[in-house]
Amino acid sequence: MLIEEMTVEECREVLTRASLARLACEMDGQPYVVPVNLAYDGSDLFGFATMGYKIDCMRANPLVCVEIDDIKSQRKWTSVVVFGTYEELPDIPEHETTREHAYELLQRRAMWWEPASVSVANLDYPKSFAPIFYRIRIDGMTGRRASPDRVEVDSAQSTKPASRLSRLLERVFTN
Amino acid sequence: MLIEEMTVEECREVLTRASLARLACEMDGQPYVVPVNLAYDGSDLFGFATMGYKIDCMRANPLVCVEIDDIKSQRKWTSVVVFGTYEELPDIPEHETTREHAYELLQRRAMWWEPASVSVANLDYPKSFAPIFYRIRIDGMTGRRASPDRVEVDSAQSTKPASRLSRLLERVFTN
Repeated sequence: MLIEEMTVEECREVLTRASLARLACEMDGQPYVVPVNLAYDGSDLFGFATMGYKIDCMRANPLVCVEIDDIKSQRKWTSVVVFGTYEELPDIPEHETTREHAYELLQRRAMWWEPASVSVANLDYPKSFAPIFYRIRIDGMTGRRASPDRVEVDSAQSTKPASRLSRLLERVFTN
Repeated sequence: MLIEEMTVEECREVLTRASLARLACEMDGQPYVVPVNLAYDGSDLFGFATMGYKIDCMRANPLVCVEIDDIKSQRKWTSVVVFGTYEELPDIPEHETTREHAYELLQRRAMWWEPASVSVANLDYPKSFAPIFYRIRIDGMTGRRASPDRVEVDSAQSTKPASRLSRLLERVFTN
């Protein structure tokens, strides 16, 4: 398998196409990660949530990490990791334009609000049903792309081990 | 969409079947999340890595969060979130049995070591190629399962909005 670093432009393309992401936040040193729907406008990421542990964490510490991947197989995948800062967009005049912008972006995703809102609808938490829009300002990002290498292409046509790594790891455990 | 809490037994079944997970860790308040291969033995999770930022983080703060999901569609998915503690298994006699146990579990996954080791093979970091096995002791876990609800099944056969939630959210932005 060959792994290449992706350019910033390639990372941006991944963000533009994606809607499903994994969002990591933390509170008091305990990391937390959940799947979320996010939308990218070429500059920032936008999301929607209702109150819950994720929002508690991001209010306590706005530093977040977002991972967006496309894993076709163990040897063919892309993964983009974004470091960013959470910024809530409360329903006040100051944020009206940005909230509408977020709404426009997010509504293009089919049923984008459901994972966020459904817990309220079905798990009887009416008090928490205040739609919370947020922006994640991107502080930096990296991306990697994997593809099968020449050795693997060859080995697919033979019975030889896929690479020297497999032999090396076997030695670790057989010596 | 209906969301149900999963029982611990159901969460364990998801862990038993899974190999791909998202592992979140943090250092100095900055969360980090990456896809990893993990194996579950009914009690703990086991993984393999080479040196890198993820290991730096977990050595600095062993608290981690692992998310394992199966997202068939926006309305049909499961997501299990595990809170755990990282424990490295260095190559010393004390950990020999546990390392072999981890190796046995992980080698059942096709090409399980590649994402961890390939950066060394192809990105020229020979110094970091020391295989690091680790265990994640599970401190707690929760799981949720989503499925389409009756309203959605009905609305799929009509032109009515999917739920009262869509109408409510529309009002937020049209008033």
